[in-house]
Amino acid sequence: MTLEMHPQRWGNPAEASSLPDSVRALVDAFVGTRDTPAVSEVALPAPGLSGHVLGALRSALGDEAVLTDDETRRLRTRGKSTPDLLRARSGDLVDAPDAVVRPGSHDDVVATLAWAVEQGVAVVPFGGGTCVTGGLAARRDGFKGLVSLDLVRLDQLVSVDLVSMTAVLQPGMRGPAAESALAEYGLTLGHFPQSFEFASIGGFAVTRSSGQSSAGFGRFDDMVVGLRVATPIGELRAGSSPANAAGPDLREVVMGSEGTLGVVTEVTVRVRPVAEEKVYEAWSFPTFAEGAEAMRRLSQDRILPTVLRLSDEAETMVNLASQSDIGGDGVTGCLMIVGHEGAAVADHRVRVATVLTSLGGTNLGEERGAAWVAGRFHAPYLRDSMLDAGVLVETLETATFWSNRERLYTAVKSALEASLGAGALVLCHISHVYETGCSLYFTVAARQGDEPLEQWLAAKAAASDAMIESGGTITHHHAVGTDHKPWLAREIGPVGVAMLRGLKDAVDPTGILNPGVLIP
Amino acid sequence: MTLEMHPQRWGNPAEASSLPDSVRALVDAFVGTRDTPAVSEVALPAPGLSGHVLGALRSALGDEAVLTDDETRRLRTRGKSTPDLLRARSGDLVDAPDAVVRPGSHDDVVATLAWAVEQGVAVVPFGGGTCVTGGLAARRDGFKGLVSLDLVRLDQLVSVDLVSMTAVLQPGMRGPAAESALAEYGLTLGHFPQSFEFASIGGFAVTRSSGQSSAGFGRFDDMVVGLRVATPIGELRAGSSPANAAGPDLREVVMGSEGTLGVVTEVTVRVRPVAEEKVYEAWSFPTFAEGAEAMRRLSQDRILPTVLRLSDEAETMVNLASQSDIGGDGVTGCLMIVGHEGAAVADHRVRVATVLTSLGGTNLGEERGAAWVAGRFHAPYLRDSMLDAGVLVETLETATFWSNRERLYTAVKSALEASLGAGALVLCHISHVYETGCSLYFTVAARQGDEPLEQWLAAKAAASDAMIESGGTITHHHAVGTDHKPWLAREIGPVGVAMLRGLKDAVDPTGILNPGVLIP
Repeated sequence: MTLEMHPQRWGNPAEASSLPDSVRALVDAFVGTRDTPAVSEVALPAPGLSGHVLGALRSALGDEAVLTDDETRRLRTRGKSTPDLLRARSGDLVDAPDAVVRPGSHDDVVATLAWAVEQGVAVVPFGGGTCVTGGLAARRDGFKGLVSLDLVRLDQLVSVDLVSMTAVLQPGMRGPAAESALAEYGLTLGHFPQSFEFASIGGFAVTRSSGQSSAGFGRFDDMVVGLRVATPIGELRAGSSPANAAGPDLREVVMGSEGTLGVVTEVTVRVRPVAEEKVYEAWSFPTFAEGAEAMRRLSQDRILPTVLRLSDEAETMVNLASQSDIGGDGVTGCLMIVGHEGAAVADHRVRVATVLTSLGGTNLGEERGAAWVAGRFHAPYLRDSMLDAGVLVETLETATFWSNRERLYTAVKSALEASLGAGALVLCHISHVYETGCSLYFTVAARQGDEPLEQWLAAKAAASDAMIESGGTITHHHAVGTDHKPWLAREIGPVGVAMLRGLKDAVDPTGILNPGVLIP
Repeated sequence: MTLEMHPQRWGNPAEASSLPDSVRALVDAFVGTRDTPAVSEVALPAPGLSGHVLGALRSALGDEAVLTDDETRRLRTRGKSTPDLLRARSGDLVDAPDAVVRPGSHDDVVATLAWAVEQGVAVVPFGGGTCVTGGLAARRDGFKGLVSLDLVRLDQLVSVDLVSMTAVLQPGMRGPAAESALAEYGLTLGHFPQSFEFASIGGFAVTRSSGQSSAGFGRFDDMVVGLRVATPIGELRAGSSPANAAGPDLREVVMGSEGTLGVVTEVTVRVRPVAEEKVYEAWSFPTFAEGAEAMRRLSQDRILPTVLRLSDEAETMVNLASQSDIGGDGVTGCLMIVGHEGAAVADHRVRVATVLTSLGGTNLGEERGAAWVAGRFHAPYLRDSMLDAGVLVETLETATFWSNRERLYTAVKSALEASLGAGALVLCHISHVYETGCSLYFTVAARQGDEPLEQWLAAKAAASDAMIESGGTITHHHAVGTDHKPWLAREIGPVGVAMLRGLKDAVDPTGILNPGVLIP
């Protein structure tokens, strides 16, 4: 069975480590109200679906596939945003599903949807549970109850095509399981978001995830060539060919749909050979603007390394995005991490280094690069430790075109600082680049007030307003969920909203799939 | 004013030249029934919209923007498929629009759509008129009449962003106009389909066009970062950022929608610097399979040149896809064209050549490469000359994953040969490659029977069946139109069709936009 995440914290708390010095100093500066974490045995609402209603589902899928015990339901309650954690820590489990359904096949998913339509039960597809945008907290009003459709049993590598370099994966495979199954064929997917250790293949697809190696491997939506989807009106198979002109690309409709249009039961992905060489190095740039300019040059000259990320001045000083203290002492200006992976990286490394040097970069060697790799999935644990210590900490991200980068950066940073008040830390990095623009990923830390949830929601709203008003997107790679929905409506406008509703009404006419999520 | 295409032939017939020797020999072998081309003065159906109905539109847009003369209507009747040409040559102009509307702005388009909704008039957006899939022959039943929404006046470069390397183009710009406007900034779009000289920016977007330089520049849908769209329910602006996770990608919904969901009034594209060096060379491979394997290697090793195309044995012998006789005498096996464009191409050229040589390729030098460049947009003229000579000639394309290439190739080729009978020539090339697969582009020539239209439609149906049954797509880069609609329904299935209908109903509730096109 896949490792479960703690219901109130990230991942396996045994993996958490003590705070690095730079963060320790920050925490000391923020000594304030501290939570008393609630025990995980807080009572859940009683399951709201009768044995009679669940009986039909048990007959179809088997008793072992329909669970109503508190322990299982608690582990399928919401995702892992800071608001989710604050609610869980305070003992608020009102979003717990009435039951957890674990289909073992595409047909089981079909049967579950048919049952849900017939009974009027809301269905929340669940992959790894790492969502940070409220995408696992569906609205239950108007429904008899709500079940979590837990894809954990759909965890197999279905097939590999070594000629086309594609693989068919089931949606419940977690990142490490997918990589290790592919590695037996000498292959890699190359998708390593911070949530890698717990997030699922299906989740990557329906949230348009983007990983830390996106400069070399692309976003997850670049990797997907085919999707099998169970919808309430039947099965969709999208992806007859790598690319075509056969109408709107339905893969691009399912991707980003967050379980509101159907349940992805198979994902066909492009794969590549496992890299023979991997090297990560650190660079520094005098300013964030100069570092960003170097990233733009690499993108537009199309000589990108595999990993490319740049911290702003503040994040370089206090690196909350890494387990290790890779910035701070010894690095002036802005820290850049550059990773090269491939069959032979030497030539490409020289080309990249030549550009970076010519644009003001200083090579800091491989030690800090290795430290970044070692800690690359660890930041969420740091958040738990900081929440324990009474620090309010969370992340958010946006993206824009290069010419708008500075404006968007300043607007979001200012909005967060103004909302959170004096002393709040707002850190930023660029971790995903394109020929025409880049992402901006913010990490925020502030003294926790008496009402940390409301404190954060106000800051988040201010930042979200700033994103839309400054021409950015409400989300670069964390999806919409419920948290971003009002801003999605502003981003895509009423015609865009009408398109989403038209799709929804067409494939889910009774609206059982993740109600209240994504679609304004 | 943009150069108009002849109503019964491709482009400007003055540009056509005599048949190359290899084709001449073919024509002689096929001496059969020859058309007597009808003169272009064949009478059109009388315009079906009253002056009263058109009056409101004239008031809104100005008299000069609403044309009903025969000459203008004839030039906006259908596209340039062989069936379109056969119908035009036979004097069948039943699909002529009642009027041609030429909006001068986004607001004019909005006003036209509002008028069409109010009056119940069908609207067919018209870019360059190069469509080869019946996408300009909308159904008029149920409507008071039908107008061609001719975007020819929306032909400006709106803005250039030299930092983000993007440009905003109006949809009526033809390929050469777009390239020459961008060239003033030292920029290129890099999109060169065979229809380049006449096709439009808006058309490229809504048909998911792919050009001859797609190995280096990508498909047109890869180039588009933003779209402004006028729909009957309002304006859509899609593309807040290079990429994001803000739900389904609405750009990917509009692209491929062929004017059925809205009228694109601005396209924001990624641009690149004009190449400083360009070199094209020819290679030969012993067999089509070996040449395809070399293409696969270049794609999967990600060392693609800018242009990469490979003719099968038959096309190498009789190259109908080029003005010049670049295959034929002196080339054994299969001809490959390899083009390198960039700031400095020498190193990359060596890397590509090393792979090609190691996989059995023989370098034939630059002469045939230059001949290919010189004739790259000329094949459609050759078709006219062959139709004149009584030869039935047409093209069609599909795409699939590498492991399915041979099966799809054999199935489509066999289906065409079986339908067209003994002596029919079926030629093929691969001109677009991906890491996971490639396109297959077929050119067919046969003796014209008494009913060439029916003859071709039967062959086309057989080939289309073979594509779907062999796991290919019904169209790699020519879109769906009316001709491919039944096979689109098979390719995307009933759930896919329901999605398209849901989108259509949402944004075009009265169904005025290109009725009968694309959506099954």
